[in-house]
Amino acid sequence: MTNTQVTLVQIDNYGPWTVTPEPRREVDLQTLQSRLYADLSQLIGNRGGYVFFTRFDNMIAVTNGLDTADHELLQESIRNRYPVSISLSLESGPTPAAALATATERLQNAGSAQDGDRREILTGSPVEAGGRTGEDVQIAHFDVIDATDEYTDRLSAYESFIAIERAYASLMSYMHEANDSLSFFVGGDNVIAVCPDLKRETYHSAIDWVSEEVAVDLRVGVGTGRDAHTAGMSAKHALERARESATVVEFL
Amino acid sequence: MTNTQVTLVQIDNYGPWTVTPEPRREVDLQTLQSRLYADLSQLIGNRGGYVFFTRFDNMIAVTNGLDTADHELLQESIRNRYPVSISLSLESGPTPAAALATATERLQNAGSAQDGDRREILTGSPVEAGGRTGEDVQIAHFDVIDATDEYTDRLSAYESFIAIERAYASLMSYMHEANDSLSFFVGGDNVIAVCPDLKRETYHSAIDWVSEEVAVDLRVGVGTGRDAHTAGMSAKHALERARESATVVEFL
Amino acid sequence: MTNTQVTLVQIDNYGPWTVTPEPRREVDLQTLQSRLYADLSQLIGNRGGYVFFTRFDNMIAVTNGLDTADHELLQESIRNRYPVSISLSLESGPTPAAALATATERLQNAGSAQDGDRREILTGSPVEAGGRTGEDVQIAHFDVIDATDEYTDRLSAYESFIAIERAYASLMSYMHEANDSLSFFVGGDNVIAVCPDLKRETYHSAIDWVSEEVAVDLRVGVGTGRDAHTAGMSAKHALERARESATVVEFL
Amino acid sequence: MTNTQVTLVQIDNYGPWTVTPEPRREVDLQTLQSRLYADLSQLIGNRGGYVFFTRFDNMIAVTNGLDTADHELLQESIRNRYPVSISLSLESGPTPAAALATATERLQNAGSAQDGDRREILTGSPVEAGGRTGEDVQIAHFDVIDATDEYTDRLSAYESFIAIERAYASLMSYMHEANDSLSFFVGGDNVIAVCPDLKRETYHSAIDWVSEEVAVDLRVGVGTGRDAHTAGMSAKHALERARESATVVEFL
Repeated sequence: MTNTQVTLVQIDNYGPWTVTPEPRREVDLQTLQSRLYADLSQLIGNRGGYVFFTRFDNMIAVTNGLDTADHELLQESIRNRYPVSISLSLESGPTPAAALATATERLQNAGSAQDGDRREILTGSPVEAGGRTGEDVQIAHFDVIDATDEYTDRLSAYESFIAIERAYASLMSYMHEANDSLSFFVGGDNVIAVCPDLKRETYHSAIDWVSEEVAVDLRVGVGTGRDAHTAGMSAKHALERARESATVVEFL
Repeated sequence: MTNTQVTLVQIDNYGPWTVTPEPRREVDLQTLQSRLYADLSQLIGNRGGYVFFTRFDNMIAVTNGLDTADHELLQESIRNRYPVSISLSLESGPTPAAALATATERLQNAGSAQDGDRREILTGSPVEAGGRTGEDVQIAHFDVIDATDEYTDRLSAYESFIAIERAYASLMSYMHEANDSLSFFVGGDNVIAVCPDLKRETYHSAIDWVSEEVAVDLRVGVGTGRDAHTAGMSAKHALERARESATVVEFL
Repeated sequence: MTNTQVTLVQIDNYGPWTVTPEPRREVDLQTLQSRLYADLSQLIGNRGGYVFFTRFDNMIAVTNGLDTADHELLQESIRNRYPVSISLSLESGPTPAAALATATERLQNAGSAQDGDRREILTGSPVEAGGRTGEDVQIAHFDVIDATDEYTDRLSAYESFIAIERAYASLMSYMHEANDSLSFFVGGDNVIAVCPDLKRETYHSAIDWVSEEVAVDLRVGVGTGRDAHTAGMSAKHALERARESATVVEFL
Repeated sequence: MTNTQVTLVQIDNYGPWTVTPEPRREVDLQTLQSRLYADLSQLIGNRGGYVFFTRFDNMIAVTNGLDTADHELLQESIRNRYPVSISLSLESGPTPAAALATATERLQNAGSAQDGDRREILTGSPVEAGGRTGEDVQIAHFDVIDATDEYTDRLSAYESFIAIERAYASLMSYMHEANDSLSFFVGGDNVIAVCPDLKRETYHSAIDWVSEEVAVDLRVGVGTGRDAHTAGMSAKHALERARESATVVEFL
């Protein structure tokens, strides 16, 4: 059984900041957001976690292996180098979606995302080091079969993008509603899903669903591990095997 | 009439690179992609352009005001600081979608996105300096009405994200098919669309469409200018006015 | 005759900020400083200028080609993305040292570097576009002859570093006192000097001075141009020629 | 007794790379170097270490607490995101200077800094986790007394810089020759020295030396700990106390 530790990262009072005293240059906002994300990627990623950019002002991370001190360090490091601060809420449990729902609720109870007085909330408790197992995190790494031939090299760049987006939207909804999973576009034609302990048939169903709903053919590699990095690397290797053997679901 | 100059940015042979000799750490890929995007944001943005992360390995930019030498500088700057290189294809015309389609086709003719021998293509000609006007670019900046109250502070972070994604997917398809526009999620609850010379009613129709299709209520500010930055800042100010006066479409 | 435009960049009230409310993590300060420098490098460098990290809280730039609006953009871009702001003072003239002295004085008159109320000063006027010439900037690029064989591959890393530092300290003092030039260590065994219109013999004298004072043998390439980038690239090519032909002073 | 673990970081074959096929833009080199340093700062710093930019192509780090796997991660992370790779050599011992000398020698034995075939050397063994103590690292944080009043607000920016550089050059030589310590300028008027177990009188002597040699008055805070971060934070607090009580040497 998985026990995914999820952290909601929310920039404090970001919306108002972007237009105060007047709207800030879009390129600076884009640079700020993507660098803040890159920094969290390194800070969390080099401790074995994953973070997804999601909406940029609200990011979702898988943080098995990061304790409270690590979370405090994230807040300190961002506060020291950016004009904004971040609040964090963490929760763990057998389904990523339920853990995130609880984490969100706890942060909402601490104050609004646009409350100028709510700053650097840190709430929730990490999984105890002694309670961690090698099955805590399941990661599924999806990509589009023949994406380069079918889309990138054939359609207009925007039509390819729409096709990828549609597949992503279809997959994210299905995996959330049917499987309590959290799926994130990570660039190219790749989607990474954070899942509870799902079986092979479930992934086949998800791929069939997307194929029927939006006519995009996916493939997936699935890995399990103590933390997101370990599970994610297994998933990548499984996906490579699926590519080579022309299968659609591979577990490692 | 608009005359949008669009540049397709494609990382050369990126897919194969990410798995050679074996899959690279996801956090490093995420960091690389988001920083490369941030750098292009600064390089293009500080010359008056906009770039959107799109799929990260394929990015779309509005580059009115950037000439061939500026595009060569982008390639040189990336090559000097990253382990990857980029190809660029530019085209201009009255509709952004058509310009991008032509730019894409030209790059495809130069070689596949996964052709190891195709490197640093630069193709297409910029708008002549003398031919530029103050109506060349139209930018529409959309956001979700009461996003914080309705979604961020109320739903689970992932449900909010799904709602935003759905609105975005609906808007991007509609604006592309009905209006030859290119729409991009830029974080939070914001979407920026690069449009031909559209009228007020057209924006009302788009907002109605999204409201009916996915039940998310949008608002938009529209601006026009010589380049993306000028048009985009007008759009932001127009959007602020819409917020204050509780209207749904504002032009500046 | 050169007409170097020099800009003093000073982080506002930085010293107090680094210890308020208590001393900040050194790694965050190092990261902040070096990224802020990297960003200015891109912002100034991609407009043809050079910036040197100097003391990091006080940086010195050669900004021929950057006008007042460009300087305002530097301030806005930093303010939008960092927890600190910068003041700028610019001045031009036939000797870089004199121009910098005037620029410094003007900024000092506007308030102390540690005055909490002095923020984002911008003072001084750029060279008029019409008054610029191809001889405005002279750049000399020095390196150490056989640095790898003599130092890096032979001595302890710190002894090599001390040798380079000594050569740098000797050169910077000499070039400043004798030639009103500003010299900056730029990494490896490289020093870049911003000079007035100096002759070949003057560079020979400087190299002899360093050789006698600290027994480190330098070589130099010298270039002239409308801006720092053009002059600097000529200097680099001249230095390559000096390397190949085993000479110690080359002009391009 | 201290037991400092020192890591020499050397960019592989960097000099030749900067001029191949022809000299690269200086601003890109500056950006590359300072960002690579910033990234190492975060990677090493967030594990309790310190890294100093030194010559940028050769950096020196204090890495107590980082094991071999951490060092491999540094190499992998840089290789994945930069066009260059790094070699690492680590060694520990009671004096930082001796440890670095051994580390340097071992790397030199593996090949020249400009050997195109020497890539990503990792040599040397970390301190065993069980052998670490709270006295392993001694950090001394120096600054200049009244730097803002005496220099920054009074002299030309370059004259202030020369004064700081002279104090630094004097201190670094003295601390190296007399005390086997490694001193590094870290911005502003700050120098951080990595020292063996030195006594109060030794620091007084160093300060007297610099005062006599170059007429710059220093102050120092000294801290000891299991790793650079802990020792360094104590040193910063000690320095604050010295500032407040107008003393010149404080231990915490």
